Amino acid sequence: MRYAVFGTGTVGRTVAAKLALLGHDVTIGTRDPRSTLSRTEPDATGTPPFAEWGRDHPQVRLAAFADAAAHADVVVNATSGATALAALGLAGAENLEGKPLLDIANPLDFSRGMPPSLDPVNTDSLGEQIQRAFPAAKVVKTLNTMTAAVMTDPARVPGEHNVFVSGDDIGAKKTATELLLSFGWPAASIIDLGDITTARGTEMLLPIWLRLWGALGHGEFNFHIQGARTGA
Amino acid sequence: MRYAVFGTGTVGRTVAAKLALLGHDVTIGTRDPRSTLSRTEPDATGTPPFAEWGRDHPQVRLAAFADAAAHADVVVNATSGATALAALGLAGAENLEGKPLLDIANPLDFSRGMPPSLDPVNTDSLGEQIQRAFPAAKVVKTLNTMTAAVMTDPARVPGEHNVFVSGDDIGAKKTATELLLSFGWPAASIIDLGDITTARGTEMLLPIWLRLWGALGHGEFNFHIQGARTGA
Repeated sequence: MRYAVFGTGTVGRTVAAKLALLGHDVTIGTRDPRSTLSRTEPDATGTPPFAEWGRDHPQVRLAAFADAAAHADVVVNATSGATALAALGLAGAENLEGKPLLDIANPLDFSRGMPPSLDPVNTDSLGEQIQRAFPAAKVVKTLNTMTAAVMTDPARVPGEHNVFVSGDDIGAKKTATELLLSFGWPAASIIDLGDITTARGTEMLLPIWLRLWGALGHGEFNFHIQGARTGA
Repeated sequence: MRYAVFGTGTVGRTVAAKLALLGHDVTIGTRDPRSTLSRTEPDATGTPPFAEWGRDHPQVRLAAFADAAAHADVVVNATSGATALAALGLAGAENLEGKPLLDIANPLDFSRGMPPSLDPVNTDSLGEQIQRAFPAAKVVKTLNTMTAAVMTDPARVPGEHNVFVSGDDIGAKKTATELLLSFGWPAASIIDLGDITTARGTEMLLPIWLRLWGALGHGEFNFHIQGARTGA
C-alpha cells in the first residue's frame, strides 16, 4: 500500500518508520522539503533534525504535501492539530478524494498556556473539521489517544488496552482496522465508537492523558475500557 | 461520619444507600423536601418517585440543603451539574466551610441536543467553579467517571479499573480516599491526579463515556489506565 504521512515530528516519523518496516511504500509530507532538510539542530523539544532521521530511514521519501498525497492510497495526518487543515489544504482536495484519511492528531491549543487546552472541543472536533473541509475524503479518527511509541507497538504497555476508531465510511474504517492489526493491536482491542462525531470523545481524552502523564511520570500507559463486553 | 448527599436522583440515592449501609449518618439534601416527597409518578427517565425509595431506606433522612449541610461532616454533590452551584448556594457557604465537599457530578449541557456537551469545559470545570464559589470548602472531584452502580460497588466491573481524585486539600483527599476504600475500591485503583484543575480531565471523559455506552449497549464499564506504574 502507498502511504503519505503528513508531519515530520515524532508521531509522523514513528508511524512512517513502522509502515516502511511493514513493507509499505511511504512518503512523509511536509510544506517545503528543502526547508525541512536544511535544519541541522534539534527542535525546541529536543527532537533531532529530520535530515538525521532520514539518513537512518532511507526507504522513507520526503515530499511536498501535494506530491505525497497524489502518490498515496492512504493519507495519515500526523501534523500538529493547529496546522492540520492548512497542510491538507496544501495537499489539495483532489489528492485526498476517495481516499482513507487517518487523522491521528489532536487539536492542542498552547495559546492559553500550559497544560494546553483543545480547540475545537466539546461541540466539534478536529476529525469533524477535516471531514467537513474535505467531504470527498474518508476521514477516520484513530490512534490519537496514546503516545507515538505505543501507537505502533502496543505491546510496550503490558496487558489489555484499547484503540478507538471513529468515522463515517465503513470501508475506510476497515482500512484503518487492518492497519491497526498490522501494528500489533489485537482485534478485540479495537473499539469502533461510531461516526466521525465520536472523535470529540477521543480528542477530549487528551486533558486527562496529559494529567496522567504528569501524575505517573511517564507516557507509556494507555486507556483500557474494562467491562467492554458488547450488549447481549 | 455524618454525610449530606445533595441530589435525589439515581446517583444521590445510590451513594446515600451505600453510606447508610456502611453505618454512616446520612441525610439527602433537596431544595424542598415537601415537594420532593409529594411526587408519586416516575420521572421522565423512569426513576421511581423519591417517596417510594425513601420507604425502602428509612435510615436515610431527607432535608433542605442548608439543614442537611449544617448537620454534616462531609457533603457530597450528586446534583445535576446544571443545578450544583444553586444547590450549594442554598446550602450556604457557612454550612460548607472547612468541610470536605465531594463533587461527583458532571456539567452535562442538554441545551444543544443529544448527546449532551459539557459546560464548563476545557479551560474550566464544575469542580473548579465550586471551589471558586466556596473557597472555604475543601472540594474533591471524584467518582464522576462511571455509572452510579459502579461507584459504590466497583466489583460489578470485572478486573482492574480506576477511580480518580482531584483537589487542592490533602486532608479532604484523604477523606475521599477512605470513602473510596470503604466502597470497595482497592488502594491501587485510586489515582490522585493532582489539584482541582485536573477535574477538567475527568469531566472531559464524559463524552467518550456516553459514546461507549452507546457502542457497548450497557453502562457497566469503567476506565482502566493500563501501564500506570508510577515513575521510579
